[in-house]
Amino acid sequence: MIKALLMQDLSAQSQALARGQCSSAELTAAALAAIAASQPHLNAFIHLDAPAALLAARQSDARRAKKRILGPLDGLTLAVKDNIDVAGMPTSAGMATRRGRLASIDAFVVQRLRAAGMVILGKLNMHEAALGATNDNPHFGRCENPLRDGYTPGGSSGGSACAVAAGLCALALGSDTMGSVRIPAAYCGVVGFKASYGRISTAGSVACSPMLDHIGPILRSQRDLQLVLPVISAFDAGCADARDLPDLHALSSPRWVAASDVEQLGTTPEVTAAYRQAIQALRDRGQPVTEIAIGSYDFGRARRAGLLIVEADLLVEHQQDWELQPQLFSAQLARFLKFGEKQPASAYAAAARVVAASHIEVARWFSHGDVMLLPTAPQTAFSFADPVPANQADFTSIANMAGIPALSLPLPCAAGALPAGLQCIAPAGAEATLLALDLQGICTR
Amino acid sequence: MIKALLMQDLSAQSQALARGQCSSAELTAAALAAIAASQPHLNAFIHLDAPAALLAARQSDARRAKKRILGPLDGLTLAVKDNIDVAGMPTSAGMATRRGRLASIDAFVVQRLRAAGMVILGKLNMHEAALGATNDNPHFGRCENPLRDGYTPGGSSGGSACAVAAGLCALALGSDTMGSVRIPAAYCGVVGFKASYGRISTAGSVACSPMLDHIGPILRSQRDLQLVLPVISAFDAGCADARDLPDLHALSSPRWVAASDVEQLGTTPEVTAAYRQAIQALRDRGQPVTEIAIGSYDFGRARRAGLLIVEADLLVEHQQDWELQPQLFSAQLARFLKFGEKQPASAYAAAARVVAASHIEVARWFSHGDVMLLPTAPQTAFSFADPVPANQADFTSIANMAGIPALSLPLPCAAGALPAGLQCIAPAGAEATLLALDLQGICTR
Repeated sequence: MIKALLMQDLSAQSQALARGQCSSAELTAAALAAIAASQPHLNAFIHLDAPAALLAARQSDARRAKKRILGPLDGLTLAVKDNIDVAGMPTSAGMATRRGRLASIDAFVVQRLRAAGMVILGKLNMHEAALGATNDNPHFGRCENPLRDGYTPGGSSGGSACAVAAGLCALALGSDTMGSVRIPAAYCGVVGFKASYGRISTAGSVACSPMLDHIGPILRSQRDLQLVLPVISAFDAGCADARDLPDLHALSSPRWVAASDVEQLGTTPEVTAAYRQAIQALRDRGQPVTEIAIGSYDFGRARRAGLLIVEADLLVEHQQDWELQPQLFSAQLARFLKFGEKQPASAYAAAARVVAASHIEVARWFSHGDVMLLPTAPQTAFSFADPVPANQADFTSIANMAGIPALSLPLPCAAGALPAGLQCIAPAGAEATLLALDLQGICTR
Repeated sequence: MIKALLMQDLSAQSQALARGQCSSAELTAAALAAIAASQPHLNAFIHLDAPAALLAARQSDARRAKKRILGPLDGLTLAVKDNIDVAGMPTSAGMATRRGRLASIDAFVVQRLRAAGMVILGKLNMHEAALGATNDNPHFGRCENPLRDGYTPGGSSGGSACAVAAGLCALALGSDTMGSVRIPAAYCGVVGFKASYGRISTAGSVACSPMLDHIGPILRSQRDLQLVLPVISAFDAGCADARDLPDLHALSSPRWVAASDVEQLGTTPEVTAAYRQAIQALRDRGQPVTEIAIGSYDFGRARRAGLLIVEADLLVEHQQDWELQPQLFSAQLARFLKFGEKQPASAYAAAARVVAASHIEVARWFSHGDVMLLPTAPQTAFSFADPVPANQADFTSIANMAGIPALSLPLPCAAGALPAGLQCIAPAGAEATLLALDLQGICTR
């Protein structure tokens, strides 16, 4: 019974605890057992603290016995991407330079989830320095896609999506600079969410790019966002990227917009088919979908601009390590950083203009409707043996650049095939509309 | 009578037109005469189009005769800083490279004010490329402070503040990257306003720094903002910096915050005295003012970061001119650009982090109250013969970096002395609170 519960979402697990069907200690022990069994193959975790997790679970059970739980998340399991601080655990950011570097306090979001009673299992594998989308980590080992052997779970939050898809934790935190929460969520068939820029504090995380970074949850259902978002989206006056955002009301019947030309942008036939099927399903329900062409936006130029910004930002974030122990950086990452070192300030300034221009493009989308639908990535998960598609983050990074919320939900696929993601994007401050979307029967979670 | 009216604010002039006390053609002719008389000494204007202005004025009068005016601004005079496009006029940005470069369409804000019936007189002098705060322009001549011979009107929107203070136009537009609207407004004893980042479109202006630029009005009274802001703050989907901002309700009794340590930050005795007097006057009215120290914020570091960003951004904006005709840049500007050329992308990235950290400091201010009061500049206008104070924009640029609204109102001064400015700063989206502030009797406009 408990093993089956591990594959359920937060809401179901919360209900099971509330009904006394199991204890947090039992759930946590089962998760730890599942992790132990999975590690040799999936390698989702970089760091585990089983004793601390079991202690926290027993404390949760004690609260529950006294009818003093801290909320619906109390006693449920959380795992955290390894670029986000958990007090007493190392924060490696998937980098050899940072191996064993202990965090003394929780990141803001971790603090909030811990205060809500969550049981923290450990730290999750990720692409080195959060720059890359395969999670083929040279220092901590490759993380596998639980849906298919030898395939990437996506990145950079690959461990987070893998752990959620494989039932190793009830909730995972990831970080998303160009799509690093939504892409692995799509590749692993789970739910990924990136809020408006500034909604969720990034304080206590290793920056990839302060201008583009977002911390976001990976979950097993869309409905679970209702439990998680209010906890992690509190204003953090101590964080440079925290903003007092408007809380726009949820639109009950949002006007849909979709892209008519995803094929021309390199979307594979399977993803295109799944995407078109979702649009058709909405129309079959009597919900109009306005299709617009988006190919006039230069996705390649935006990608190069984003990459240049990240490279320069990483030089600032890892300056000391890069100076003192450059040999600990992978050849791939070193190549990126060396490219960044050669760029002048004016190239960064020009790239920032390209990033800012994303606002013009998304304003155009939202002149046609309330929620933009795009594939999350132009392809499904690919084999580690295959080359990395250059356009992987094209449909996701525009939401980072424009600072707008985006939700990735898994689309159905044939038995044995790999799922595509449907990305639902809304204007800044319109998280509530995304949370309220009714895509049951169209998406699988 | 009309000559006296030129020194009145928009509201009074609008009323005079409504009452038939004068026509727009008379007002416009009087303004043109005042400009002509002032030019040899003040040199506020770089470009004038008297025939077009008189034509527009007559058209306004014709609308009025048919009782079809376009609003309270119809028939009132507007002059525009020369880095903001007015169709058919050159946009020099105070640069020799751009001399005579005609704009084919109005900037977004100009378009809005023209559609509201305003009569556009011409283009206003400014510091070269909007980088600098003296308006000692080597290509178009020095603009003088109308309050004292041989003194700077401030910059970079020096011509804008000069024209408003001298009664040469009813409203002027300026641009504000580190304080370039508020500083000249303070130095010339008039009102300057910078809205939240994204509230007023910068489309159609020559960028100083897209990240920090704001277009803002310079006016002869605080109340005039009620007429101007709704016209110029429409959302512009075609502009990269336009944002859908929350419209926070005006607070009728805002809790005041002030800085206890402005002296330690280099504020001159006269400005400190005027500032403290304003705070005391609020207390005398029974309004508590919480004083906090702000010296822990590294204003010097922020200044250097802002300057580096502007230098790199100017290289992007003027790239072609800098390559093809570098000899047309002043020695001062060339020095800035050459410094910028030597900076690596990572220096820009590091500077962007400093800019972002301004959010932490202003969040701290607003944890103590609703409106922060600061001197606009640490000094009053200074002689062109004196060295330029390095800290001129320290109290203003933090609002550009944090993207929050700030209003500069003139403080009283002894007869013959030069006025200081009182800067009222509020959180993003809280323009309404600043517009509703009641500082009558404390500020002079």
